[in-house]
Amino acid sequence: MQGNSQQQAYDRGITIFSPDGRLYQVEYAREAVSRGTASVGVRTSEGVVLAANRRVRSPLMERSSVEKLHKIDEHVGIASAGHVADARQLIDFARRRAQTERLRYSEPIPIETLTKSVTDHIQEYTQTGGARPFGVALLVGGIYDGEPRLFETDPSGTPYEWKATAVGGDREELQETLEAGYSEDIGLEDGIELAVEALVSANEDLEPGNVELSTIDADTESFETLSTDEVETYFTDIEGETDE
Amino acid sequence: MQGNSQQQAYDRGITIFSPDGRLYQVEYAREAVSRGTASVGVRTSEGVVLAANRRVRSPLMERSSVEKLHKIDEHVGIASAGHVADARQLIDFARRRAQTERLRYSEPIPIETLTKSVTDHIQEYTQTGGARPFGVALLVGGIYDGEPRLFETDPSGTPYEWKATAVGGDREELQETLEAGYSEDIGLEDGIELAVEALVSANEDLEPGNVELSTIDADTESFETLSTDEVETYFTDIEGETDE
Amino acid sequence: MQGNSQQQAYDRGITIFSPDGRLYQVEYAREAVSRGTASVGVRTSEGVVLAANRRVRSPLMERSSVEKLHKIDEHVGIASAGHVADARQLIDFARRRAQTERLRYSEPIPIETLTKSVTDHIQEYTQTGGARPFGVALLVGGIYDGEPRLFETDPSGTPYEWKATAVGGDREELQETLEAGYSEDIGLEDGIELAVEALVSANEDLEPGNVELSTIDADTESFETLSTDEVETYFTDIEGETDE
Amino acid sequence: MQGNSQQQAYDRGITIFSPDGRLYQVEYAREAVSRGTASVGVRTSEGVVLAANRRVRSPLMERSSVEKLHKIDEHVGIASAGHVADARQLIDFARRRAQTERLRYSEPIPIETLTKSVTDHIQEYTQTGGARPFGVALLVGGIYDGEPRLFETDPSGTPYEWKATAVGGDREELQETLEAGYSEDIGLEDGIELAVEALVSANEDLEPGNVELSTIDADTESFETLSTDEVETYFTDIEGETDE
Amino acid sequence: MQGNSQQQAYDRGITIFSPDGRLYQVEYAREAVSRGTASVGVRTSEGVVLAANRRVRSPLMERSSVEKLHKIDEHVGIASAGHVADARQLIDFARRRAQTERLRYSEPIPIETLTKSVTDHIQEYTQTGGARPFGVALLVGGIYDGEPRLFETDPSGTPYEWKATAVGGDREELQETLEAGYSEDIGLEDGIELAVEALVSANEDLEPGNVELSTIDADTESFETLSTDEVETYFTDIEGETDE
Amino acid sequence: MQGNSQQQAYDRGITIFSPDGRLYQVEYAREAVSRGTASVGVRTSEGVVLAANRRVRSPLMERSSVEKLHKIDEHVGIASAGHVADARQLIDFARRRAQTERLRYSEPIPIETLTKSVTDHIQEYTQTGGARPFGVALLVGGIYDGEPRLFETDPSGTPYEWKATAVGGDREELQETLEAGYSEDIGLEDGIELAVEALVSANEDLEPGNVELSTIDADTESFETLSTDEVETYFTDIEGETDE
Amino acid sequence: MQGNSQQQAYDRGITIFSPDGRLYQVEYAREAVSRGTASVGVRTSEGVVLAANRRVRSPLMERSSVEKLHKIDEHVGIASAGHVADARQLIDFARRRAQTERLRYSEPIPIETLTKSVTDHIQEYTQTGGARPFGVALLVGGIYDGEPRLFETDPSGTPYEWKATAVGGDREELQETLEAGYSEDIGLEDGIELAVEALVSANEDLEPGNVELSTIDADTESFETLSTDEVETYFTDIEGETDE
Repeated sequence: MQGNSQQQAYDRGITIFSPDGRLYQVEYAREAVSRGTASVGVRTSEGVVLAANRRVRSPLMERSSVEKLHKIDEHVGIASAGHVADARQLIDFARRRAQTERLRYSEPIPIETLTKSVTDHIQEYTQTGGARPFGVALLVGGIYDGEPRLFETDPSGTPYEWKATAVGGDREELQETLEAGYSEDIGLEDGIELAVEALVSANEDLEPGNVELSTIDADTESFETLSTDEVETYFTDIEGETDE
Repeated sequence: MQGNSQQQAYDRGITIFSPDGRLYQVEYAREAVSRGTASVGVRTSEGVVLAANRRVRSPLMERSSVEKLHKIDEHVGIASAGHVADARQLIDFARRRAQTERLRYSEPIPIETLTKSVTDHIQEYTQTGGARPFGVALLVGGIYDGEPRLFETDPSGTPYEWKATAVGGDREELQETLEAGYSEDIGLEDGIELAVEALVSANEDLEPGNVELSTIDADTESFETLSTDEVETYFTDIEGETDE
Repeated sequence: MQGNSQQQAYDRGITIFSPDGRLYQVEYAREAVSRGTASVGVRTSEGVVLAANRRVRSPLMERSSVEKLHKIDEHVGIASAGHVADARQLIDFARRRAQTERLRYSEPIPIETLTKSVTDHIQEYTQTGGARPFGVALLVGGIYDGEPRLFETDPSGTPYEWKATAVGGDREELQETLEAGYSEDIGLEDGIELAVEALVSANEDLEPGNVELSTIDADTESFETLSTDEVETYFTDIEGETDE
Repeated sequence: MQGNSQQQAYDRGITIFSPDGRLYQVEYAREAVSRGTASVGVRTSEGVVLAANRRVRSPLMERSSVEKLHKIDEHVGIASAGHVADARQLIDFARRRAQTERLRYSEPIPIETLTKSVTDHIQEYTQTGGARPFGVALLVGGIYDGEPRLFETDPSGTPYEWKATAVGGDREELQETLEAGYSEDIGLEDGIELAVEALVSANEDLEPGNVELSTIDADTESFETLSTDEVETYFTDIEGETDE
Repeated sequence: MQGNSQQQAYDRGITIFSPDGRLYQVEYAREAVSRGTASVGVRTSEGVVLAANRRVRSPLMERSSVEKLHKIDEHVGIASAGHVADARQLIDFARRRAQTERLRYSEPIPIETLTKSVTDHIQEYTQTGGARPFGVALLVGGIYDGEPRLFETDPSGTPYEWKATAVGGDREELQETLEAGYSEDIGLEDGIELAVEALVSANEDLEPGNVELSTIDADTESFETLSTDEVETYFTDIEGETDE
Repeated sequence: MQGNSQQQAYDRGITIFSPDGRLYQVEYAREAVSRGTASVGVRTSEGVVLAANRRVRSPLMERSSVEKLHKIDEHVGIASAGHVADARQLIDFARRRAQTERLRYSEPIPIETLTKSVTDHIQEYTQTGGARPFGVALLVGGIYDGEPRLFETDPSGTPYEWKATAVGGDREELQETLEAGYSEDIGLEDGIELAVEALVSANEDLEPGNVELSTIDADTESFETLSTDEVETYFTDIEGETDE
Repeated sequence: MQGNSQQQAYDRGITIFSPDGRLYQVEYAREAVSRGTASVGVRTSEGVVLAANRRVRSPLMERSSVEKLHKIDEHVGIASAGHVADARQLIDFARRRAQTERLRYSEPIPIETLTKSVTDHIQEYTQTGGARPFGVALLVGGIYDGEPRLFETDPSGTPYEWKATAVGGDREELQETLEAGYSEDIGLEDGIELAVEALVSANEDLEPGNVELSTIDADTESFETLSTDEVETYFTDIEGETDE
């Protein structure tokens, strides 16, 4: 995306409309999302899969500190893409929101309710002056009432529900892979394989160690993170298939 | 609408008047409304019809998450067009307003009262600094005292009452179809058909699954949403008529 | 009015003086008033007449929702011209002010007191930063102590008292008609006719249905709105006179 | 006064000094005063005279609503020139100030104390950001301790005491007339005649009906307003003199 | 002083440093001081002399209202030069400060303490945003513990102590006269003569009536103002000397 | 890094996104970090090593006052690089945070918790208006539950965990040395040697006296600072090795 | 230092980073320090010496009012250089801080604690909007626990500890003289001589009367100011030495 003089006129001070009805600061925040590595979510009949490509810039960096998947509560997790420090703010917001729900109603928060609390918070940063929008997109996945649910939040503060989707860099390619491989009755195992396949489709040299992968099982309703060894088996499966 | 240098002078910082007495930020917010897909409202003798074209950008996206029709209270619903995240703020505002009325007076809120609360809220964002206007138009439909009512709110914060109207993209064409097909004694069935006909008039390839359709019946005073199958029957009716 | 570069320098941020001592934002707000359709007020010996041309942009729009005449209290009404959403704010302000007076003193508010409360409120928006002026002019008409009174408020926050005047588009022409037809001992009937005549003088195709007309009678001290049928009789009278 | 690019640099946002130590916003506010019609004050041995030229823009406008002379308290009045809505704010401020004095000390407020309260208030609007200066000049006249006093306030917030002076348009000419006709032992009658003469000197076509005239008598210490008939007699006197 | 484009860059919004470490808004405020007529202070062994040139712009203006010398408390006075309305704010500040001291400690405020309270107040307006500096310089003269003291405050908020000095227009010339005529053991009579001589040195046509002159005697510790007749005698003395 | 006109457009007022989704003010703050001398952290099996190059600009300056290593609590220390005064603010913030934890839970604060409190604080300065980002990077090292941990905070507010890393000037070269010399089972002694080696690799003339070096031992869980003499022995070791 | 257009872009509104990671407003504030006359501090084994060149612009100005050395508490003093009014604010801040310590703990404040309170205060003015940095550098000298200490604060808010240093104009030359003449075991007498020598090295015509000189003795822990006569003896010593 190239900046020209007309655009520049609409991105200073506070977030305002351009003559054609666009909010450039929000669109630039979407560019910040595209600059991050991808995260993928797949909703299956047995639960939700969240996966992320975590880029590590040195062998001495602890992979685990490049956090792109976050447990929010027992039954819900969030995968992020974009500006890392902004993501942390929204993750904290979501955790406090989930905790408040448990304290007040002794109930897990519905996935949709949680998502919409987050998007309302994001929207405020696009309308009121004195702050910039959040440069981050989230995938909110979890189980509520036995039902797997998967939502996306974007920098404008709009919530979308998905069967499977990707946020961050190379989104188009990942989405194509997901659309090609997805079916309604897919199970958790196949969902994980599809998520890994999507990440690999946009980055052939991706190593298992750089993939963060979690599931929220519809039966147990609990957030589980796979070890690198477990992730690796899905890489082998994909290669196997590809070889066939 | 083309932006030139004179216009640019009037859309920065806060919303101010141009030399010819216009508020450009409000007009740009109207452009944001035009960028959205259309919503339609039809007031009939038996109740109000709200319908919307919901564009889904991938087969994996859940149609139901592209919310353009919102139940506000038992007896009132809102259809929106424009910036989705802004619409959510106004919908929340309207729901809280309706709830407060019930709590205070144990009465459903009058449709006109609700609409004007919303437009007053919208107007503030066009006069006081530190925020931008809402980039959204709403159709507020409902029953009060047995009477069907249909209102529109625009980004300037002006309320209008309609027999039938459309907001969002292709408004002109939809309005022409509505004017041609409307009569005062129309019933709910014909009202639904007219709403669908209007949406199709501006978008021939529109599929029933992409139409969201609700009614608020004057007798039951309750907000009901039609299934895709039910919506489809009205498509058949229109085609039948067209064929004749 | 043409905007040139010198003017542009004085209408940004807050309302400030230009080198020749003018407040451009206030003058631009007056332009916003001129963009609206006209409202007329006539003070007669028997009461005050308020009339307005309400433009309806579609046959499906409810005329009654294009509100230009507003009852403020039993004994006082306001006609507006200009930015509709701004007018609504001032109408609300005036209603609350009148109500407060009744609560505190169990008395109807004097028309002059009410007008000056409104203009003080308007003036603040022209001097203090962080907001724009109101783009609206009002005609405040009512009875106090048996005396009919008619005031105008303009976007600078100045109050004027009139025997008869017009605000909004084509003001010059309307004012000429009023000056030609007004006499001190005019009664309510003749006042209504003069108001209608003025509106028609600037818009020959004006239909009775697009005229909103109210009176505040000096005897009953109550705000009454005429039906379209009643309005129509005054159109016939005018045509009769013109034919003579 | 012509605006050039250097001046423009010093009149935005808040009121700041120009390189040559001037406050342009204050000077532009003085231009706003010059745009108004003149007001005159004459201090005589028997009391103070305040007179104003009130321009009425239509025969249907009530002259009395073009208020340029204001009673502040029994013993003090103010004549204004410049931006009318701004004047109203200062008049209200002065009235509240006088009332407070009466409530606290059961005493009429000294004329000098009142004037300096007003100028302190005006000065704040020239130093602190977020507002523009007042575009108005006042003549504060009254009796305290039996002594007639006459003060001027200007848009910078400086108080001056005068024997006789004028504010508003054509000030130079009016001041010349006052200097030529004034003597220390002048009585109220001669003071009124001098005030009228000054107004006429700058505007030969001035009609008695357009002159507002009040006195504050040193004996009665009360603010009295002359009727148009009374004003007219002074016009005759002047003509008589001129004829001689 | 000529304004060029580089300077303009540093005088907007808030007071900030220029690349060469200067505060232009403070320097422009010093220009505002130079635009005013001069005030002079002379510290003698017997007390302090304050004198000022008060320019009167019409024979009808009351000289006494052009206040440049102000009694602050029994034992201390202030002479000002520059923007008159700003000076009034600082005079009020000083009076309240002196009064507070008397109330709290039943003691006259030390001259140095008073001066530094005022300069601290001035400094705040040069560092914090949202306001402009004070365009005024003060001479604070008084007696404390039997000692005559004379201080200057400038628009940056710096206090200086002097034996004799001048502020306002033609400062250089006045200071030369003071340096030539001053000696440590000078008495009050000679101090007055020196002050008058300095004012005359920069303005040969100065009339006694335009000189405001006060003393604070070291013995009586009280602020006394000289009548025009008394002032005149010192003019005669000077002429006498000059003639010799 | 060269500033061009497009970049300049995005770094004024508040921190906002550029069209390509970057936050220039944050990137410029990273430049401020690069302008500082380097700090190094090494996590070993026996504890954490923090080392810093402290540049002293005169032989008369006290080396100890150029603080780059700071004890935060018994079990945790921070090394900084970049804008010194900003670092002091974050150090104070971290100390108060650690103290609060001890007061509330009578427990040492977990290293990760402390780090994330600091990064949340940093992030706020990159999103909300009215302030600039912190121009500083920190290395937070300590022991929690017997485990050595080492974190980095950058000006965007992102936390990273490392085995060994450097912040400040010449980061690339230092990181290369660390990557070449690091092994998982390294002990404290070797860790210190590696840290010194890294600092020397980027600055061959570095003297022992300009190296600040502290350790947090996993057994004792206490922050210890080495004397210049102790530091010197590691210089000898390196030279010894190099000679071999 | 020359201002060019790139720099200008980074010094408006609030203090922000330039593309190369610098804070121009802070650097300009350092220029304001360089514009002031020098102050010197020397730490000896027997106490601390503070000395300053006070420039007096007229023989009638009281030298003592050009305050550059300030007693803060019995055991600590501060010498300043740069913008005088800003220095006064920091001196007041330091005095209140020292007083608070005495009140709370009945103990003299440690010199380092005092210095860091001041630098934290200074730093806030470089990061938060709405104000400019302080244009002043301070030398904080005093005794704590019997130990002489000497600190410097600069406009960025960084504290440094010194054996001997100078702030203000001609800093380079003064520092060279200090480095050449300083030795660790220097006593108070030699420290004073060195301080005077440094001031003279940059200004050969400096007169004893323009040197302000104070000591804080390690034994007595009290701030003492030397008379001009005492200062003069050190001038003689230097000349003596130079003559040898």
